[in-house]
Amino acid sequence: MLQWLRQYRRAMLPGDISAGIVVAMMMVPQGMAYALVAGLPPVVGIYASILPPLLYALFGTSMTQSVGPMAIISLMTAAVLAPLAVAGSGLYTVLAAQLALMAGAVLLACGLLRIGFLANFFSRPVMSGFTIGSAVVISIGQLKPLLGAALPGVHGPSAMLGIGSLVLLVLARQYLAPLLARLGLSPEAANTGSRLAPMLVVIGATALVPLLGLVAAGVQTTGDVPSGLPQLNLASSSAHWRSLLQPALLIGFMIFVISMSAAQTLALKRQEKLNSNFELLGLGAANLASALSGGFPVTGSMSRSAVNFSAGANTPLASVITAVLLAAALVAPTGWLALLPLPTLAATIIVAVLGMLELATLRMCLRYDRGDALALLATAGGVLALGVEAGVIVGVLLSMGTLIWRESRPHIAVLGRIAGTEHFRNIRRYPHAITMLDVLVLRIDAGLFFGNVEAVSARIEEELKTRPATRHLVLVLSAVNSIDTSALFSLTELNRDLRRRAITLHLAEVKGPVMDRLRHSDMLEALSGQVFMSTDNACDALASPPQPGEYVI
Amino acid sequence: MLQWLRQYRRAMLPGDISAGIVVAMMMVPQGMAYALVAGLPPVVGIYASILPPLLYALFGTSMTQSVGPMAIISLMTAAVLAPLAVAGSGLYTVLAAQLALMAGAVLLACGLLRIGFLANFFSRPVMSGFTIGSAVVISIGQLKPLLGAALPGVHGPSAMLGIGSLVLLVLARQYLAPLLARLGLSPEAANTGSRLAPMLVVIGATALVPLLGLVAAGVQTTGDVPSGLPQLNLASSSAHWRSLLQPALLIGFMIFVISMSAAQTLALKRQEKLNSNFELLGLGAANLASALSGGFPVTGSMSRSAVNFSAGANTPLASVITAVLLAAALVAPTGWLALLPLPTLAATIIVAVLGMLELATLRMCLRYDRGDALALLATAGGVLALGVEAGVIVGVLLSMGTLIWRESRPHIAVLGRIAGTEHFRNIRRYPHAITMLDVLVLRIDAGLFFGNVEAVSARIEEELKTRPATRHLVLVLSAVNSIDTSALFSLTELNRDLRRRAITLHLAEVKGPVMDRLRHSDMLEALSGQVFMSTDNACDALASPPQPGEYVI
Repeated sequence: MLQWLRQYRRAMLPGDISAGIVVAMMMVPQGMAYALVAGLPPVVGIYASILPPLLYALFGTSMTQSVGPMAIISLMTAAVLAPLAVAGSGLYTVLAAQLALMAGAVLLACGLLRIGFLANFFSRPVMSGFTIGSAVVISIGQLKPLLGAALPGVHGPSAMLGIGSLVLLVLARQYLAPLLARLGLSPEAANTGSRLAPMLVVIGATALVPLLGLVAAGVQTTGDVPSGLPQLNLASSSAHWRSLLQPALLIGFMIFVISMSAAQTLALKRQEKLNSNFELLGLGAANLASALSGGFPVTGSMSRSAVNFSAGANTPLASVITAVLLAAALVAPTGWLALLPLPTLAATIIVAVLGMLELATLRMCLRYDRGDALALLATAGGVLALGVEAGVIVGVLLSMGTLIWRESRPHIAVLGRIAGTEHFRNIRRYPHAITMLDVLVLRIDAGLFFGNVEAVSARIEEELKTRPATRHLVLVLSAVNSIDTSALFSLTELNRDLRRRAITLHLAEVKGPVMDRLRHSDMLEALSGQVFMSTDNACDALASPPQPGEYVI
Repeated sequence: MLQWLRQYRRAMLPGDISAGIVVAMMMVPQGMAYALVAGLPPVVGIYASILPPLLYALFGTSMTQSVGPMAIISLMTAAVLAPLAVAGSGLYTVLAAQLALMAGAVLLACGLLRIGFLANFFSRPVMSGFTIGSAVVISIGQLKPLLGAALPGVHGPSAMLGIGSLVLLVLARQYLAPLLARLGLSPEAANTGSRLAPMLVVIGATALVPLLGLVAAGVQTTGDVPSGLPQLNLASSSAHWRSLLQPALLIGFMIFVISMSAAQTLALKRQEKLNSNFELLGLGAANLASALSGGFPVTGSMSRSAVNFSAGANTPLASVITAVLLAAALVAPTGWLALLPLPTLAATIIVAVLGMLELATLRMCLRYDRGDALALLATAGGVLALGVEAGVIVGVLLSMGTLIWRESRPHIAVLGRIAGTEHFRNIRRYPHAITMLDVLVLRIDAGLFFGNVEAVSARIEEELKTRPATRHLVLVLSAVNSIDTSALFSLTELNRDLRRRAITLHLAEVKGPVMDRLRHSDMLEALSGQVFMSTDNACDALASPPQPGEYVI
């Protein structure tokens, strides 16, 4: 907490100042646009960008994270509030703040309970699918403001402005950074400069509005933006606490997952260490602050944090500077903001979310793991078909499903001795490896847990059936990193069952931590056979005197 | 499918007949009692015990499973239907059958999709907690019929009959089997005989009703039981399809989980192999049959299947005989069933569900794994506090939570060479193991997946920080059984990041299946270092010419 302030050095200041300014300039159009995605008045997006980063700076452990409105969380907010209130109404605004309050409380509670490991409920392919699905939903939602009318209708002046802005932004995204680099800027500076394109396009489009009399032509603008800082907001609707509870849990979860994935990417680049429990506290406090200043749910955004990082941010001071600049912008005359045309804002949103549409993960999954590719596509489909809220649940279930499915079919090998050595190998890969008639040696290549105990039992039974002369079963546990309670039960039952059938169960190569745990159970006492240090020891000890016609090992 | 019929041998017949009779006698009071738990007329419990086992016999792969009404599923049925209709009303009965129909369709669909691995979403401790919570809820619900009045009220004659039955049943459970054994019966026969105690107590109590004029004294009885076989039932309420969808998913899941856990225990004893996808089909067909004969959701029950097994059942023919006997009982005069006193039925329910209250799992968890013990207690608490439906979701989340939590903290060891050997060991356990200044060797003792990639990255970063002279990082993957897409991304990022810091990344002892998968990615080409067969090879190759003052290995 504020450790960065004690270690602050003067050399960090220029970077923090430049990043603070760049992010503030990026945040004005972005904050307003994401407020519109959430169904809120544009100024709320700026309110939600002032106090939250300051509060995050108190607790958060990421040095370059930029907390504020974010496209997916705005989409979720709109999905939650749509059935409860009319977008733009006073109740809607109150409920948005209340949702931030409740999500913040959930995050704080999780942080105090130290259950930061929850972020691990989303696998990377599922996260990618969720992002793709959300980006498509958001883009489709922006077509109406972009074109000035619901499809198939088009409002000419709006569509020209919107599509013109879109083309400019796409071109800027593609060519501005190389252009600036060719003009002599360093690659970093060129990259940062290109991030200001949305601000420039918005200013240009706003200037066109009075010049071309676009308001009279029917182009919609943001309208009056009240000047002055956000007021302390304590309004809430007691009738809606219950119906916001489950959405607050889901949004709180996604706030955390999205923020952590951004923070982790940057922490890796800066060789920093994050503390997920402090991240929970930071995000919780930020959302409470957003609620109290009349905002809506906020999170750390990958795109904004990356700009913050590449513009030179060294500490959360950059975010403090951003916040101060945004507050100053609200205190200054805000009349010009009233003319900001909505088609251009829609264009900035579409370009921003299409930037999240990365297909590299899908391509990698298709080559590397079809199951993960399926999970990715199913999550994206879930968001499109069932909505963004149900999409979170689909995502968690698919993450868990792929995990359980993969783990439920562990690799198990029958081992044989490589003649004349102490080495034992899978007899499928080494057909000349020598096995004994009455000793079956199985190596289990997976941690034993509730998800695979039945598959392991079934496989052992199968191998025993094909080798009816077996009197000793040796389980080689060299690759078993853990045994949970369900698996312990299963082992105990196997031992009891084999004893009834006059087959002795032995263990070999049990790892230290696993052995430590087994000592806390009855398993070792009940075991009909022994625990051997190595497979070689086991087979030497169990080899019976040679019978006529039997191999001698 | 019906494979058992082709392999049927005459020697199996006596066992099947005796089991069929015993289970039928057990099923009359049990079926009626569980129908009462579900809020349905008692005869529905018998309807649900006739066709379902016949249909299960067509598809199911367990030879001794007995399918029919079951306490926990009845409780869930009651919890689902309570808000939708008045217990005992015509609509209630229609909705019960509709719920069975929908759950059956869910089970069939899962079977056709071959997703039988879904049963693995419940860990054994969580299942135990769920059972304990449900047993307590059911027992509390039976207090009113047992005592003839809602507490603190007590209806004297009812309470005397109910508590008398309860005491008799508890005594029978405790002492009848040893008594019968001392009278010369084999232990098996004695055990089976003791299972008929509920039937005998019910018959005795029913005889008391007219003898003591208990109906006039205010003791409630089952009332008229319509004689005759169940009619084909096609009634459904189109208004309730939507509200029954989510409950049908949850009940379908629990039908499968409960049935599989019973079937697996018995399959282990009989050395049989189950096919979880055929089990899904069998249970789905059984529930459709239950719906069409006016029943309610059914499943394989542990207690009844265990009786079936120990009474000698060899094949599903035993269940067919049970079904025929129950049908015959309905065709015969059923007048006497009208006098069956409800307090006695309540007593049989309480004794049956208290039998499910096994605390051995909790005791084992407390010793072996505190996390699992916590999950067990939290699931039981979830059922008690939030109800049996929410309890299923709590159970799934806790099963997954304990898994992710355990896996999110993998064991990672820094390895050093045991002087003069090719062996490498954890330097914490072997402080004299020799490490090199510029080569860091880490062994990761867990499969790499989305749940632990961040922990592994953080740990690697930590180790690199304490050893700033590191130029080569060797990851020993001997215990890594799989690498999922999320982990592949993380490894790729690590490789890129280390290359930027002039540290070369090497892999050693990569397992065959893992290597096969990595060949389907760009990882091996992008790798800044090499893949070594053994840690020894790696360290030999990476050892730089000795510098003054440095160890030579």
